Amino acid sequence: MRLGLDIGGTKTAAVILHDDGSMAALRTAPSGYGGDQVVGVAAALAGDAMAEAGLGRLDSIGACMPGLVDPSTGVVRHAVNLGVETLNLAGELEELLGSPVAVENDVKAAALGALGALTARTARTARTAHRPATGGSGRNETLAYLNLGTGLAAGVVRNGRVLRGPDGMLGEIGHLPVGGDVPCVCGQVGCLETLASGSALARMWTPPPGGGRDPFAAALAGDEQARSAAAVLCRGVALAIQVLVLSTGADRIIIGGGLAALGPSLLNGIRSELKHRAEKSQFLESLGLPGRFELLPSDIPLAALGAAALSRQIKTPHEALTGTSWLSECQAVPHITTGYPTFPMEEF
Amino acid sequence: MRLGLDIGGTKTAAVILHDDGSMAALRTAPSGYGGDQVVGVAAALAGDAMAEAGLGRLDSIGACMPGLVDPSTGVVRHAVNLGVETLNLAGELEELLGSPVAVENDVKAAALGALGALTARTARTARTAHRPATGGSGRNETLAYLNLGTGLAAGVVRNGRVLRGPDGMLGEIGHLPVGGDVPCVCGQVGCLETLASGSALARMWTPPPGGGRDPFAAALAGDEQARSAAAVLCRGVALAIQVLVLSTGADRIIIGGGLAALGPSLLNGIRSELKHRAEKSQFLESLGLPGRFELLPSDIPLAALGAAALSRQIKTPHEALTGTSWLSECQAVPHITTGYPTFPMEEF
Repeated sequence: MRLGLDIGGTKTAAVILHDDGSMAALRTAPSGYGGDQVVGVAAALAGDAMAEAGLGRLDSIGACMPGLVDPSTGVVRHAVNLGVETLNLAGELEELLGSPVAVENDVKAAALGALGALTARTARTARTAHRPATGGSGRNETLAYLNLGTGLAAGVVRNGRVLRGPDGMLGEIGHLPVGGDVPCVCGQVGCLETLASGSALARMWTPPPGGGRDPFAAALAGDEQARSAAAVLCRGVALAIQVLVLSTGADRIIIGGGLAALGPSLLNGIRSELKHRAEKSQFLESLGLPGRFELLPSDIPLAALGAAALSRQIKTPHEALTGTSWLSECQAVPHITTGYPTFPMEEF
Repeated sequence: MRLGLDIGGTKTAAVILHDDGSMAALRTAPSGYGGDQVVGVAAALAGDAMAEAGLGRLDSIGACMPGLVDPSTGVVRHAVNLGVETLNLAGELEELLGSPVAVENDVKAAALGALGALTARTARTARTAHRPATGGSGRNETLAYLNLGTGLAAGVVRNGRVLRGPDGMLGEIGHLPVGGDVPCVCGQVGCLETLASGSALARMWTPPPGGGRDPFAAALAGDEQARSAAAVLCRGVALAIQVLVLSTGADRIIIGGGLAALGPSLLNGIRSELKHRAEKSQFLESLGLPGRFELLPSDIPLAALGAAALSRQIKTPHEALTGTSWLSECQAVPHITTGYPTFPMEEF
């Protein structure tokens, strides 16, 4: 069995996967604040999840959280929302759990989780159609996961491995200045994150008291501020998709994070924006961007699932993952739905 | 021996490398226009270069040119400046030269050439210092080559291999709309290429009749239009460097192409811009961008050198290049200077 811990800005999740990739347990709780509490909550949840899963040997533990995470040292820096400036996450968790722990940045872990979810879907579709599982998340495909949470960041997976770049900076495209005059938390002005993120939406549109939090629905009901905010949001996401295809060479982009809960209206808004742009540019038209992205339901615990796959990813950096390890385990992920009706894996 | 052909918008170059990577011959001529002439000039130059190099078995032939190049079919599309809409470059060259030909886009080939030049320099420095060649272009390093020619495009090399992305689009960052209202040739508005490229500079600044073509020198002499153009150019290049680090995870960026001839004043202008930006953003400061890039002399035939390395790159897409093949051959590239004093490899 494998344990995956996702320490988020507000919520911590612990997931345990059976050897066949099916889910044995899932527990969530509000995250702690400050290094000691952050680690304490995660370790306690891990214990609860192991108790729920019953007896069984734990083969690996992976944990992810926001901030600058160094998998080689296990140290996390600048996880501001969790009150963490520097934390030896791997070391502290290892002390409490008594086993080695692999760590990664949460968006990068979620990218691995997204790869697993897609692979599972491909395998399920193939089983249903009684044909071999081909296509989908192939070994030479580059998958980009675009996280629309409070901020905007991406994780890129190639040949089953997360790409990191210097200091793990690969994917921090939210801090590319692409126009506009809105100051960004990073000190720059006009960053992509000031257009397309939860914080950007909150700045651009105030939901009416007692009303829904969907700017697309509000726009349809005549809310002009909501319409404008939704348009900027879609333009920003469209640009992020273009950045990912032209600079990381992503074949497919999976959008997740809190804003993915906006569902089909966000999906259609982004697609319309991409089609609109392509009408004016043969170059853009040739990229086929509207067909390259999709939204995953925001309640699939992508980061925790990815964290559960971490140890083989991180501890053996030069070992290319083969179809017989994590990827094949993920082909069992559809079983994740058993007893967990809140993950609509069958629908997406 | 290996033959590399670089079919540029104005000039075609043929280079022949000995088995140890040293240069046996180099010939250049104005490029042809239209498919037949383009191929004819390249094949004739190849013959001249082989005659110059003397007897010797040719182990491989690689060719590169602008446009959408598909290495798997050998076909080139949209090489507008060469009057080529569709051309079976590999097939036509193979017919004339009687040997298999591997093809690639010119900027991607130049990225391979830049990797070879850096590896050669590292090896030379190590030899001079009587120590093993470590660091430099290591196997796990990502190198981005940023070409500032008529347009702007990048080539990215990881573990000694060129990354391509869907339809070879990886690296076409010149067509990211990043602000401004200048229409781009691609149909979009405000693309990075409209800020930082030869065509952008020509649009922003008209050199005085009989004067030099260096906007930095003209700015120093009081030309206000030149000062403004140089500032926009440096801002655009700085942004391109930021895009490459944050989205491709490039550890190092090598700038080449026609504008690289501007030399130290361009280098210093870009560096100043990057430092200026970092003063306002801890995030940018942490990326250390001013130390991540350098200019290569514009007269090193990077694309032709990269083309000479192509066949092992392209024809065996799943074979990771080892230190015993192309990389180790490139360690001999310093010998390139023998008899070719116009390549200041010893100085850069």
